[in-house]
Amino acid sequence: MPNAVYQPAKLTRDTLRVIPIGGLGEIGRNMTVFEINGKLLIVDCGVLFPEETQPGVDLILPDFSLVRDRLNDVVGIVLTHGHEDHIGAVPYLLRLKNDIPLIGSGLTLALVEAKLKEHRIKPYTFQVEEGQTEHLGPFELEFVAVNHSIPDALAVAIKTVAGVVLHTGDFKMDQLPLDDRITDLRAFARLGEAGVDLFLVDSTNADVPGFTPSERTIGPVLDSVIAHAPRRVIVASFSSHVHRVQQVLDAAHANGRRVALLGRSMVRNMGIAAELGYLKVPDGVLVDFKKAGDIPDDKIVYMSTGSQGEPMAVLSRMANLEHQIEVGPGDTVILASSLIPGNENAVYRVINGLTKLGATVVHKGNAKVHVSGHAAAGELLYCYNILKPRNVLPVHGEYRHLVANAQLAIDTGVPRENTILADDGTVIDLRDGVATVVGQYDLGFVYVDGTSVGEITDDDLKDRRILGEEGFISIIVVVEAGTGRIVVGPEIHAKGFAEDESVFDKVKPKIAAALAEAAGNGTRDTHALQQVVRRTVGRWVNTSYRRRPMIVPVVIEA
Amino acid sequence: MPNAVYQPAKLTRDTLRVIPIGGLGEIGRNMTVFEINGKLLIVDCGVLFPEETQPGVDLILPDFSLVRDRLNDVVGIVLTHGHEDHIGAVPYLLRLKNDIPLIGSGLTLALVEAKLKEHRIKPYTFQVEEGQTEHLGPFELEFVAVNHSIPDALAVAIKTVAGVVLHTGDFKMDQLPLDDRITDLRAFARLGEAGVDLFLVDSTNADVPGFTPSERTIGPVLDSVIAHAPRRVIVASFSSHVHRVQQVLDAAHANGRRVALLGRSMVRNMGIAAELGYLKVPDGVLVDFKKAGDIPDDKIVYMSTGSQGEPMAVLSRMANLEHQIEVGPGDTVILASSLIPGNENAVYRVINGLTKLGATVVHKGNAKVHVSGHAAAGELLYCYNILKPRNVLPVHGEYRHLVANAQLAIDTGVPRENTILADDGTVIDLRDGVATVVGQYDLGFVYVDGTSVGEITDDDLKDRRILGEEGFISIIVVVEAGTGRIVVGPEIHAKGFAEDESVFDKVKPKIAAALAEAAGNGTRDTHALQQVVRRTVGRWVNTSYRRRPMIVPVVIEA
Repeated sequence: MPNAVYQPAKLTRDTLRVIPIGGLGEIGRNMTVFEINGKLLIVDCGVLFPEETQPGVDLILPDFSLVRDRLNDVVGIVLTHGHEDHIGAVPYLLRLKNDIPLIGSGLTLALVEAKLKEHRIKPYTFQVEEGQTEHLGPFELEFVAVNHSIPDALAVAIKTVAGVVLHTGDFKMDQLPLDDRITDLRAFARLGEAGVDLFLVDSTNADVPGFTPSERTIGPVLDSVIAHAPRRVIVASFSSHVHRVQQVLDAAHANGRRVALLGRSMVRNMGIAAELGYLKVPDGVLVDFKKAGDIPDDKIVYMSTGSQGEPMAVLSRMANLEHQIEVGPGDTVILASSLIPGNENAVYRVINGLTKLGATVVHKGNAKVHVSGHAAAGELLYCYNILKPRNVLPVHGEYRHLVANAQLAIDTGVPRENTILADDGTVIDLRDGVATVVGQYDLGFVYVDGTSVGEITDDDLKDRRILGEEGFISIIVVVEAGTGRIVVGPEIHAKGFAEDESVFDKVKPKIAAALAEAAGNGTRDTHALQQVVRRTVGRWVNTSYRRRPMIVPVVIEA
Repeated sequence: MPNAVYQPAKLTRDTLRVIPIGGLGEIGRNMTVFEINGKLLIVDCGVLFPEETQPGVDLILPDFSLVRDRLNDVVGIVLTHGHEDHIGAVPYLLRLKNDIPLIGSGLTLALVEAKLKEHRIKPYTFQVEEGQTEHLGPFELEFVAVNHSIPDALAVAIKTVAGVVLHTGDFKMDQLPLDDRITDLRAFARLGEAGVDLFLVDSTNADVPGFTPSERTIGPVLDSVIAHAPRRVIVASFSSHVHRVQQVLDAAHANGRRVALLGRSMVRNMGIAAELGYLKVPDGVLVDFKKAGDIPDDKIVYMSTGSQGEPMAVLSRMANLEHQIEVGPGDTVILASSLIPGNENAVYRVINGLTKLGATVVHKGNAKVHVSGHAAAGELLYCYNILKPRNVLPVHGEYRHLVANAQLAIDTGVPRENTILADDGTVIDLRDGVATVVGQYDLGFVYVDGTSVGEITDDDLKDRRILGEEGFISIIVVVEAGTGRIVVGPEIHAKGFAEDESVFDKVKPKIAAALAEAAGNGTRDTHALQQVVRRTVGRWVNTSYRRRPMIVPVVIEA
């Protein structure tokens, strides 16, 4: 169990306990645990991508410590949709117990199964669809269609003896979506009429005024850009954005072009989406990348990954001329994607690189080639008014998003005291229509780096930041056991410190003198001698260079 | 002299050579060198702020190698305005020769003098104003008023026997600026009528459609936010943005509040601006920070730095409760500033922190509290049409901005072959109204870190990036000279690698075995033995952890 900042009382019978494990205070690693009468239900289990303050980290997982010892009580994991920030941590949870049922729509399960296959886990899955109701232990689940930037997303109503919860997952309310599958506001209305006690609602765009434009507005722009492109067209987007790819396929087809998919995740996901019927591939439009080179430049569209400037993805490699496709004058590159905060420099580097190669780069800064997948403030107001929830818990957002979302709830008449601004680890009990914060666990970040899971600590990341900013100076001295007399050294090595190593000649006599003095005073302990070296070198480098590299002294007895 | 990728021919008499040293391909470190008949003129000498790929660097300077040996031929440095990206590198150039005349407007010179004072340099300055003409050797300079996000900015027309150049510096065309000092399009028209052979023009906003709104539109928003603020108001902006601060002072005054300035650069710059009459301080509105605590919360406005989320600036410290001013519920924080790409995560961290403390945060995402200082595409079109330059050299921008600006010139009728897409170090000769690219120098980044200038290389930064992402493992072995037998060790230390150090027990026998084998084969050279250690540990860590920390083997003979 994690530390409790504020220990919740023992859960009483017929009370529903709700604990967001991840996704509050961050965009990512969404995970919520529901508990009643000894049974647990999990909704979503996603990853968070690291920021620049978390260098070298591959992924960040939710902290499973609250459920780790209770896995036998978990009746299932509902996955609202197939995005990484909702399914990406499933393999790490199933490593602990691989037969917890996964419940989700057809596309969601297909995507999580493909991911689990890479981790050599064959899960126990249970496919559901909108309108369906299922019982899992003390939970009655009703699934509701919602519209998002991936098909087949579901909200879930969780009905218990303690009250009814509605969790939106991620959603928006495109009224003319490409697949005509709208967010089911009729179901929201019906649930609201019956009474929703607690509403967990996506906050990502709560601070964006107005309404997210329809995905359908992008088609004509793509069509026009492709129609006027003199040579090759390369479109980059997210590898799970089936409808965006659909519009590229349609626009290419309408302009007599064929499409080659690039990037492992793009090929895999679109293969799944096409096989299951979510992606409707016009006859003969797809061509294998290996054969695309034979097609004239004005008859081909490449659909790739890398829209966030990821250095190893197709688009960055193209911008650096490290890809088989050599971008040149007359080529058109479309970034049909958002720009996730923190990725700006990387994305602009790619745009500058492609521009320098002579390509025309179309992006959301200069054309309407992207719409968000999340409901803006205007849509959320509709939601609140249709649903009239008793209590609101904004989820999926940084603190500023959660606060903006809570304010929207208040604006529509939800009492301020019934809107809950929670953190990861906040414990909320629901009973008789009253939701109360009853505790707070201290949940941490669980870092994945290579094959290590959870072994990297925040202290390690602090060390990395110092090393990355300042480099290190390592000083090795071999002393004679007993006398402390220097036998070899001081030998000094530095990396990232960036001065000619001969500068260390100036500090070596200082080190020798300091060690001699310490030895003279009877200091024999190598740890104490190391501290002497650290102080001597630290003082010298700070005075001489006004810098603070990591100092790694090693004193060895021989 | 730097390496030439494409060596220019020797400069012939009565030809003007133009070499942008910095500012092309980046936003920052603006510097251009003009040469004719043996004399050099420099326009601007600024710094660039590092990106996340340049960890630990404080500043980036232009590469002075083209002028380092010619400083006696430099007739002066024209400073177009007082922003860091135009004046910040002056101290580093004047260190090489401190009597090169600095030419600029009153505010610009006051700001650069204050900066030079910190470097203990007293410069030789020559103050000019709009409309003024001066001769410096073979250069006749005419100064033209331009409007920008700092007062007293100047464009400069450089007239030589080879032709006339107009350099805009940074500018926009606010038609109702706060100080009524508009960009002098009459002068542009007159110069254009007489004939401008080469136009160096600010590209920062060339890819932004339309027109930059007037600075004046911000006043009413500030006024309304301050009028409705229940408690303290904290406004963060750039410390050189005199007109933004003016509007805060005016809005505070109109609402019966006093203003305390926070942050060293804010206090210094506004002191200079007020003394010189650029900032008009309403009677009694300013209050010393030390006395501000005595003023009721609803009667005070704090004007601070830190709008870019800089960790050491006032605003970040407030967000972390590390500042004397403890932000709390009811306080209002206004970020009256742009969001410079790359700073998003830092700024959102500050916004989240302040929101969590209970403050209402107003920023350009939710209110019109910032306008840019640079001309957008619409304004640039006016410029080109009024000026009708023969040749155009877009400056001050990343490659994508330069390309967008060139396209605007072409759209107004400048022949494509007369628009020059250049890099730092491109050599352009102007003669008889014809501008030609005649060479390309290979100019580098000059990094400042602490007191080191230019000693840090790109290889050092690569080491820092590896250390920052992966940490290091250091292995120390003392061997017997002659036999190679291990006397002490292997001793292993790791930082940022993040596993329990006992894991290294597994690799120590492998190292010992590998060294024994090498010694058995007659290897005695410690460098070769170090390579053996590096390979052994590298292979082990990659197989066991799929990671690539820096491996630092040290083999010492004793």
